[in-house]
Amino acid sequence: MKIVSTARSHGGVQGVYSHASTTCACEMTFAVFVPPQAEHSPRPVLWYLSGLTCTPANVVEKGEYRRLAAKFGLIIVCPDTSPRGEGVPDEPDNWQFGCGAGFYLDATQPPFAKHYRMYSYLTDELPAVVGANFNADMERQGIFGHSMGGHGALVMALRQPDRFRSCSALAPIVRPTEAEWSKPALRKYLGADEATWRGYDAVSLIEDGHRFKELLVDQGKNDPFLTDGLRPWCLEEVCRKANMALTMRHQAGYDHSYYFISTFMEDHLRWHAERLTG
Amino acid sequence: MKIVSTARSHGGVQGVYSHASTTCACEMTFAVFVPPQAEHSPRPVLWYLSGLTCTPANVVEKGEYRRLAAKFGLIIVCPDTSPRGEGVPDEPDNWQFGCGAGFYLDATQPPFAKHYRMYSYLTDELPAVVGANFNADMERQGIFGHSMGGHGALVMALRQPDRFRSCSALAPIVRPTEAEWSKPALRKYLGADEATWRGYDAVSLIEDGHRFKELLVDQGKNDPFLTDGLRPWCLEEVCRKANMALTMRHQAGYDHSYYFISTFMEDHLRWHAERLTG
Repeated sequence: MKIVSTARSHGGVQGVYSHASTTCACEMTFAVFVPPQAEHSPRPVLWYLSGLTCTPANVVEKGEYRRLAAKFGLIIVCPDTSPRGEGVPDEPDNWQFGCGAGFYLDATQPPFAKHYRMYSYLTDELPAVVGANFNADMERQGIFGHSMGGHGALVMALRQPDRFRSCSALAPIVRPTEAEWSKPALRKYLGADEATWRGYDAVSLIEDGHRFKELLVDQGKNDPFLTDGLRPWCLEEVCRKANMALTMRHQAGYDHSYYFISTFMEDHLRWHAERLTG
Repeated sequence: MKIVSTARSHGGVQGVYSHASTTCACEMTFAVFVPPQAEHSPRPVLWYLSGLTCTPANVVEKGEYRRLAAKFGLIIVCPDTSPRGEGVPDEPDNWQFGCGAGFYLDATQPPFAKHYRMYSYLTDELPAVVGANFNADMERQGIFGHSMGGHGALVMALRQPDRFRSCSALAPIVRPTEAEWSKPALRKYLGADEATWRGYDAVSLIEDGHRFKELLVDQGKNDPFLTDGLRPWCLEEVCRKANMALTMRHQAGYDHSYYFISTFMEDHLRWHAERLTG
């Protein structure tokens, strides 16, 4: 693991790191905030998955998570949203596919299957790197994310309910198999057989019997992607049918931006801290 | 005044606006956060002046000021750091002069005197725009800033002690007439007669009899500009001699970045809120 940068912040350390990922077959960058409490004891790990077009820099700069992470003693890990670099197939003019749009899945189709393996990367490789390099208690993990990252958080928690003690999402893509901005990507990454897409779709996973004990979701009512891409009511409906605990909050006046994210960051960190600490 | 963008944030509205400035003879952009309380009553105005190279976007994205501004009911105004645009003389390869480096002064030397009039702009023109367009109580103004903006805040408060009820600074340039990164700029803006520079130098102003009732300053001990550019001890010494109240805090481990600013933003907003509200 290489140190890209570190800076003192809110009594802890905000770092950016990189490593040669074998899973993604490229150099991968990620950000970690280590709270001051980690000097004395292993701390829980909260994963934040970012949305389309993002690198870890977006949430590091605009997410406003460090104050409460320092208060609650949470390590915050912010991975990248896709593999990147020379040799990684991409569609530079398409912000909904390729670099910045990995959709947290393991691609099966050439030429994408070699690098686009974010699901395995976040399940196996990056947790091992975090566990080896930081004073992290990997028995206490939570996960949340925004938009495409909210999709990733929901999918990972539903598929690995024993790994995560807590899960939440901000304006998540709850039904990527049907949304306009994700369906073409799933086809290219996973092939034409839509049955194989269901493992990367929160609503489908719940329909297929996967469960997570409780979810918190915030969604802005002025989000321009509400009706085409996000459709939170699909998650509400399937959770109701499955009798799965969902706290869905529709926030008047808020859009899809980091102004929305940073406003409700405090509530999400509290949600996770209550389930990861004490 | 034109609206560049607005977004709901922390219950208020973060906006970016522009207007044709007669003082600076160019279009000027500025950011304003309006807290929810402004729907019901005029709110105090706290000015944040940014550092070298910044536009208002830096503090809007990284400053983490909105949560407490919303709590305390403060309007936060973030001006640009210089005039900009076609026809504004600049040295594009020099980050310490020209666009992004207005030093909050009124230039007297050609060709800069026509546009580089940030002192008058912030004293007369922009306050009038703010007062006319927002539910602002202009009888209650405070000012703070970072680095070059800390210099600007100190100078404006010392020269207009009746206008501002509160002043603080984060890693301010306290003695720009002697610092390596500002002395060449002052020479170009103000000419060779160094006596004319003293009106834009906090330490000189205090030496020359200007006073402000009390100041809060935070300074990172790991700031790479500490000894050459910032030299907070010059302010400590002149305040001691002048018997002027200064709370100077040297923060271990912190650098010059927005990681430092956002960490201590809360303390500064509390400082101003205690003096501007209630």
